[in-house]
Amino acid sequence: MSLLAKTAGTRRVVIDHVTPSIDGGRNPFKRVIGDWIVFQANAFADSHDLLQVELRVRKVNTEHWQVLPMQALGNDEFETTYRTDSIGLFEYEVAGVVDHYGSWHEGFKKKHQEGVPLDLECRIGAELLEQAAKRASEDHAEQLREWATHLADSSADIETRISLAYSRHVTDIARSYPQRAWETTSPLSLMLIERELAAFSAWYEYFPRSCVYDGHTHGSFKDAAKRLPEIHEMGFNIVYFPPIHPIGREFRKGKNNTLTPGPDDVGSPWAVGAAEGGHKSILPELGSLEDFQHFLDEAEMRGMEVALDIAFQCAPDHPWVKEHPQWFRWRPDGTVQYAENPPKKYQDILPINFESDDWENLWDELKGVFEFWIEQGVKVFRVDNPHTKSMEFWRWCILNIKARHPEVIFLAEAFTRPKRKYFLAKGGFTHGYTYFTWRNTAAELQQYVEELTQGDSKDYFWPNFWPNTPDILHADLQTGNRATFIGRYILAATLSSNVGIYGPAYELLDHEPYPGKEENNHSEKYQLKAWDLNQPGNIKAEIARVNALRNNHEAFQRTFNVQFIPCNNSHIIAYLKQNFEKTDRFIVVVNMDWENKQVGTLDLSGEALGLAHAGNLRLVDQFAAKPTEYIWHDTTPYLELNPQTCPAHIFQIID
Amino acid sequence: MSLLAKTAGTRRVVIDHVTPSIDGGRNPFKRVIGDWIVFQANAFADSHDLLQVELRVRKVNTEHWQVLPMQALGNDEFETTYRTDSIGLFEYEVAGVVDHYGSWHEGFKKKHQEGVPLDLECRIGAELLEQAAKRASEDHAEQLREWATHLADSSADIETRISLAYSRHVTDIARSYPQRAWETTSPLSLMLIERELAAFSAWYEYFPRSCVYDGHTHGSFKDAAKRLPEIHEMGFNIVYFPPIHPIGREFRKGKNNTLTPGPDDVGSPWAVGAAEGGHKSILPELGSLEDFQHFLDEAEMRGMEVALDIAFQCAPDHPWVKEHPQWFRWRPDGTVQYAENPPKKYQDILPINFESDDWENLWDELKGVFEFWIEQGVKVFRVDNPHTKSMEFWRWCILNIKARHPEVIFLAEAFTRPKRKYFLAKGGFTHGYTYFTWRNTAAELQQYVEELTQGDSKDYFWPNFWPNTPDILHADLQTGNRATFIGRYILAATLSSNVGIYGPAYELLDHEPYPGKEENNHSEKYQLKAWDLNQPGNIKAEIARVNALRNNHEAFQRTFNVQFIPCNNSHIIAYLKQNFEKTDRFIVVVNMDWENKQVGTLDLSGEALGLAHAGNLRLVDQFAAKPTEYIWHDTTPYLELNPQTCPAHIFQIID
Repeated sequence: MSLLAKTAGTRRVVIDHVTPSIDGGRNPFKRVIGDWIVFQANAFADSHDLLQVELRVRKVNTEHWQVLPMQALGNDEFETTYRTDSIGLFEYEVAGVVDHYGSWHEGFKKKHQEGVPLDLECRIGAELLEQAAKRASEDHAEQLREWATHLADSSADIETRISLAYSRHVTDIARSYPQRAWETTSPLSLMLIERELAAFSAWYEYFPRSCVYDGHTHGSFKDAAKRLPEIHEMGFNIVYFPPIHPIGREFRKGKNNTLTPGPDDVGSPWAVGAAEGGHKSILPELGSLEDFQHFLDEAEMRGMEVALDIAFQCAPDHPWVKEHPQWFRWRPDGTVQYAENPPKKYQDILPINFESDDWENLWDELKGVFEFWIEQGVKVFRVDNPHTKSMEFWRWCILNIKARHPEVIFLAEAFTRPKRKYFLAKGGFTHGYTYFTWRNTAAELQQYVEELTQGDSKDYFWPNFWPNTPDILHADLQTGNRATFIGRYILAATLSSNVGIYGPAYELLDHEPYPGKEENNHSEKYQLKAWDLNQPGNIKAEIARVNALRNNHEAFQRTFNVQFIPCNNSHIIAYLKQNFEKTDRFIVVVNMDWENKQVGTLDLSGEALGLAHAGNLRLVDQFAAKPTEYIWHDTTPYLELNPQTCPAHIFQIID
Repeated sequence: MSLLAKTAGTRRVVIDHVTPSIDGGRNPFKRVIGDWIVFQANAFADSHDLLQVELRVRKVNTEHWQVLPMQALGNDEFETTYRTDSIGLFEYEVAGVVDHYGSWHEGFKKKHQEGVPLDLECRIGAELLEQAAKRASEDHAEQLREWATHLADSSADIETRISLAYSRHVTDIARSYPQRAWETTSPLSLMLIERELAAFSAWYEYFPRSCVYDGHTHGSFKDAAKRLPEIHEMGFNIVYFPPIHPIGREFRKGKNNTLTPGPDDVGSPWAVGAAEGGHKSILPELGSLEDFQHFLDEAEMRGMEVALDIAFQCAPDHPWVKEHPQWFRWRPDGTVQYAENPPKKYQDILPINFESDDWENLWDELKGVFEFWIEQGVKVFRVDNPHTKSMEFWRWCILNIKARHPEVIFLAEAFTRPKRKYFLAKGGFTHGYTYFTWRNTAAELQQYVEELTQGDSKDYFWPNFWPNTPDILHADLQTGNRATFIGRYILAATLSSNVGIYGPAYELLDHEPYPGKEENNHSEKYQLKAWDLNQPGNIKAEIARVNALRNNHEAFQRTFNVQFIPCNNSHIIAYLKQNFEKTDRFIVVVNMDWENKQVGTLDLSGEALGLAHAGNLRLVDQFAAKPTEYIWHDTTPYLELNPQTCPAHIFQIID
């Protein structure tokens, strides 16, 4: 019956509708360091008394609150603005208390103006000062008691008593000791302040084992390091490896996901674990832990970070299967059911049973995997299929890691239904994969981006756009059309400040599908593969140009600052990106018909676009191999986009 | 650190976004008995397992849950519809659990279709039946174990095992025993189901002490009872008295709120308490407790209920002041500060100090006042100025009373800022007074009614429209214009299903203000008053006609079913009211220029109005002294409204 219980009756203030706040504060909303956050709350009490309302913020697991007074906006609404100056997982609350001295002070001034006799009023104020003194620091207490004595002294000069009552200084000190025992606080709420890389990143995924393939050689971290200069030149700032752990031998997959591997087949890196070890071990062929750390150093030298792929699933020969059989679901025939995602079957992978009675140890061990790699220096993780593991596990695991290691970034590979994606994001995942890959018309894409950038989800779900992955080769790309590969990267990289590709498949336009599937043929997931990195027709230069624009322009370093521009040709998508101060502004235009030239006119007149000089714009196409200037003399500029030459413009607005 | 704590790890289901729900369920949403309520929630888990989601509802302070299975709508949304069939304060929760047997059953059917060998699958199903048996009732347990044995028996005929696996009966029983220990529940939430009178009522306030005034006689309950037939004929169903308690003698107010009463002055009924008693006593001049109960009986005989006015404030000679001095705020001169609402001063009234250390006893005593009168048979209360008393007190007091006496109706006289009005409503007040009195143009009134009927507040804030009160005589009424009094009552009574007037001042067009104030001169608040109930020009017949329409037509028995109709004359307000089934439909048109004839055309073409035959309507003006038929041949009917004859039409749509 707690909903009907007597709550502390001396708490006269009601506080509600604290914003921002997700799920009543249980889950954090997200911001980037340096952001200004506007906090609002409703606060009110009975009668005419004034209130003191404040916001309190502190890092979780710390004692000291940062206190920000909230200003009354009228209509019982209060507000304060908080500048984020350090990353971390924070908790905050709004506290409200009746301002007894301040209310008396205001009433006193009115009564003075009305000519009411003031001796009694002064004596009431003196009582309030005495009460404040009891709650005050030692030196203030003494001062408050002195003032109280003077204010109460009916024999003293009334004019000096009145000026004491009016005194701003006295009021400020008295008000700083309100009746805190009677204050009301909102439920403790969470807030996650992320580092800049969480808001702006370009990921490059590749398989280290394929970095030197010549028909027989297995690549290593050392070989992978040799590719870093080139990846850096393309402008990426995160390099990301599929799982680097020992690969199971039982039920190992052969090339093209067959069930009959040859003796030399290397298996799928996602079939984690073998006799050599599990999630805290490295596949010997890739190198030692020292080799891995050396790779981290090499990347760091170039300003890049390294992402690991954590897949919480086990090959049948993963050590956990023997050591912790209670973490798996055993069938009546003594086997464990392998993973399925109909119609896909993963015979080489055993799922973990999150309904285990031993769940506490399981949770600790899984969190320990991240902590182990964080100790080695890894600060970015891509998590494989998180939506097939317990939702509340992720929230607990990630928030607890963020509490101690706020710099760590988690990307959720959850291609699943919206509410599950969103819950994972609220549980602390920094980024989520999206449906970008399957939004293939201008209208579909605009609608999707507006959903991501204008809805409530932007407070927690930050998209990461991937034109391809080792699992996904969309039909659009299966044509091998160069314009498609360029255009899809431009869209991903300018619509989302977080973007990634799986290379070198992408820049080399690798497009042959496994027949009937949305996947590359001869996929690197199941075999070593040779790549000609300088293959003619590659789009390394185009990717580098897009990434350079991203790296040099704030307009592209956030996702939620996009505004679409109407175009009278449904093949053409156009949008404005601009930084907060509107000093860095771009119009991106892409012809999403990758085969045919399309022409159209944009409509720049919309008020929301805020293009004051829309009828007279000077622009430079910064994506063109040679930057080219354009002048638009009216608000309906005409455009031609021929995919045979170039499917897109990235116009910088000069003035 | 509870926000980062390990929660029960075997709970794989997440439930959020339960609707309807106010303030996370802490405060009740409201409905009327007989209403259909659609409950929705999001529920999802990891992986591909199916869920079982249900709504549980019970009266507070009872044990037994009513359980309603929720249907999956897709996209992780679930829904059920609940028919309210008894009044009361209810609590509800949404529970979700993984449907292990159902998930296996669906998977089994797929595998059967795919031609997978089924022996092992049957044995897995048998294990799930065994587990269900452990949780089942005794007879079901035996049956489940028998089925398990058969399903697991590899030597048995596979076809009979398969039909057992397919059996709907087996599945239904197995699914009725899910792993409840692992279920997730939403926070317990409150819901208030009100009786019909809460949704539809017409109040008539009058002073019993003025019922026989002849220059010296003080009226009594017996005198007040004599007016019941006439009030009943006017169509009211609640009669409401100002406070009936002993009236303080210290600082008693004289006529017209003067500070110098004569020896015969009767004082304000809101100055509660004197030597004879306080909030549980009756002013001796009005009669005894038996007389009061007799009055209740007289009202009940006519189908009317009696509302009492509870004002939690004390005259200086109220017994509480001596008995519980700790409930008052004493000033340094040994007096208690009287109530103020600048510029109004209530020298005869002491406010209660809700910051008293003795608040628990205070709360109990105040709640006890309601309970005392409920015991005497009172089921309706008007509460004076609740916003000047502790907000949380009201929530506790009213919800606890509603839990035991759900039939009791509380009207909040809170003319205050919106968030405070809304909080009182969420805390259980059935109705609230509104700003209706001060919305005096068609545009103002339409905007206000749309705010009340279309916003979120309609789930908890139910308006009660009063054209006048003993405290409020709006300038519009001070003219004494008959059309104004008729028109304002029509507006109040057809825009809000809950309506009230202060009579006989209203029906007799009493309009002389105290100079410079929005109040009647020679107010009954401070003196006995004689009324000529049959005074020429009275509007009793018009009020009776409006109330008869309300009492006979469902269209007027709800507030939230109003749709405004555009009119090209800004003086004219027009709206459609219809019942849920759209079988009872009215168009109300009022000329809010009370002086001059206005003409205009309505626009009935709006799709939202849903007037299929808008171009060919037959109507009858049921408010006209003699009902008159109209035919509208197009969607822009022309109207003339002359306040000299009648300011309004109340058209019933015939076909």
